[in-house]
Amino acid sequence: MPKFSEAIAPSQAFLYGEHAVLYGSPALAMSVDVKTRARVTEVEDRIIEIRSDRFPEGLRWRYDEEQPEENPLLPLAYGLRDLMKRYEFNKGLIVEISSDVPVNSGMASSASVSAAISAAFLSLVGESPEKYLLLDIVYEFERRIHGRASKTGPACAVLGGLVWIEWRDGNMEVSRIDSKDDLSIVISCSGLLSETKKLVSMVSKRYNEIRDVMDRIMHAISALTVEGRKAIEKRDLVRAGELMNINHGLLSAIGVSNYVLDEIVWTMRRLGAYGAKLSGAGGGGCVIGLSENPEVLAKNLSASYPSFAAKVSLEGVRVIR
Amino acid sequence: MPKFSEAIAPSQAFLYGEHAVLYGSPALAMSVDVKTRARVTEVEDRIIEIRSDRFPEGLRWRYDEEQPEENPLLPLAYGLRDLMKRYEFNKGLIVEISSDVPVNSGMASSASVSAAISAAFLSLVGESPEKYLLLDIVYEFERRIHGRASKTGPACAVLGGLVWIEWRDGNMEVSRIDSKDDLSIVISCSGLLSETKKLVSMVSKRYNEIRDVMDRIMHAISALTVEGRKAIEKRDLVRAGELMNINHGLLSAIGVSNYVLDEIVWTMRRLGAYGAKLSGAGGGGCVIGLSENPEVLAKNLSASYPSFAAKVSLEGVRVIR
Repeated sequence: MPKFSEAIAPSQAFLYGEHAVLYGSPALAMSVDVKTRARVTEVEDRIIEIRSDRFPEGLRWRYDEEQPEENPLLPLAYGLRDLMKRYEFNKGLIVEISSDVPVNSGMASSASVSAAISAAFLSLVGESPEKYLLLDIVYEFERRIHGRASKTGPACAVLGGLVWIEWRDGNMEVSRIDSKDDLSIVISCSGLLSETKKLVSMVSKRYNEIRDVMDRIMHAISALTVEGRKAIEKRDLVRAGELMNINHGLLSAIGVSNYVLDEIVWTMRRLGAYGAKLSGAGGGGCVIGLSENPEVLAKNLSASYPSFAAKVSLEGVRVIR
Repeated sequence: MPKFSEAIAPSQAFLYGEHAVLYGSPALAMSVDVKTRARVTEVEDRIIEIRSDRFPEGLRWRYDEEQPEENPLLPLAYGLRDLMKRYEFNKGLIVEISSDVPVNSGMASSASVSAAISAAFLSLVGESPEKYLLLDIVYEFERRIHGRASKTGPACAVLGGLVWIEWRDGNMEVSRIDSKDDLSIVISCSGLLSETKKLVSMVSKRYNEIRDVMDRIMHAISALTVEGRKAIEKRDLVRAGELMNINHGLLSAIGVSNYVLDEIVWTMRRLGAYGAKLSGAGGGGCVIGLSENPEVLAKNLSASYPSFAAKVSLEGVRVIR
């Protein structure tokens, strides 16, 4: 039997601070127990082959002979090739991906898949990297996929738990904060794609045009993220929800909400959520909400939008085989 | 024929800065050519009688004999009694009000009616007050009606045109800015009451609880109001609309939008508005939008919400008889 390795990684919900985290704000995100699984198998042919339940066309590339064709899986292939070089792995790989994380949902499916692939590959070549080294590797994948991206998705996928991102001396630093296992959220999917790269560059354009206004909005997000962390640490869901609502308004102000996201947000609030906001880049993707009883809320929401309750994943990426 | 006098006054739309103007921000508002008319007739009986097309129960009060009963027109009666004392008018008044301004719409119907009544009364007693004195009189009425209120509604009703409100040495100062007569907006009514007093106190409560966050949002509104003035003065409707959208997001963040207002805002934008926002206290009331062709937009919106195009009223309150 060919040599293979397999890993699973959680996904992400942004509790507070998306977008603003690219402008100096801190952010608070939650690893979500909706996961991606990747199996990496060594083959003698110098190929990178990726099979994915989400992109059935797949990708197959003789990486030292051919120009690759345009393909949504290509950034993963490039990332893998870099990793193979770095670990002097001169054979080929077949990568099989299956994921419960919706693509372009704001749930960092790309970071989740990158973490699962990276961890499986490293296990295959006999490495057990320290978590923060793995985080850097996954962050490299993310930058290939999204351009300017935060470390949030990689941190949720690699570290698990509740993740705090802040800037120190010009660097984005990531740490886990104290977390009990009782934090659950409701996630509702808009069915519209959230295109991180496009939205990040739209916000950046607006930032350059009306910097004074945008700077102050980013500062407001920064302040509410600090308050949000306190509320989450105290499990004060009422306050945490109010701050989510404020955060959603500020995300609308910077231009990344839309009609469907606002409708879901209001539906959640009317059904009793303490607060609701878009999560991630916006423009589509998911809305998250806080509630006393996420299971019931998710069930009630399901009449209108695909919705589910999700727990924090205390565990980050893990090699399972 | 008994002695009488009659005046008409415009109403208001808030282009930028409502709520924040109570926290030190400037604001830009527009006098709207949807007007209130008041006729004030002198009678020998020492009564204040108010007849209104909006409050058909009316009010009749022997002001030096009786305790007044609870009545929505009572703040107007109190304001009138003060004015009568100030001008040593010892008879009685019958006030007839007819208005095209929706009540509790965020269009400052109360300031419009107060301006029309005050101007008519002053004309009746032979006074032709300077505009800024009249403004102070109308502002007194407003404070009786709304508690903590801005000078914006009174300024729009009294001065006409585009009105700029800013703070100097702790005082709210009001001035007209250069305005051509070509500025039109679309106004759509939610059909929900906008209760200024309640919303202002809700924002104030939130302000005291999370001051750091709220302060920064107010600063952002302040900055966009300054940018909005520039855009309006240049008639750059694209930029002015973008800033309206940002302002609406920030109003959502401080908690004064709701599902219906957001729905109208998105409908306006989808129908081609450059920008749209709630106008006034929020919680209900009207949404305003900027468009290349406000008449057409209003017509298209009318399928969903009572909507109309409205021009700036270059003229403030005016005695007509």
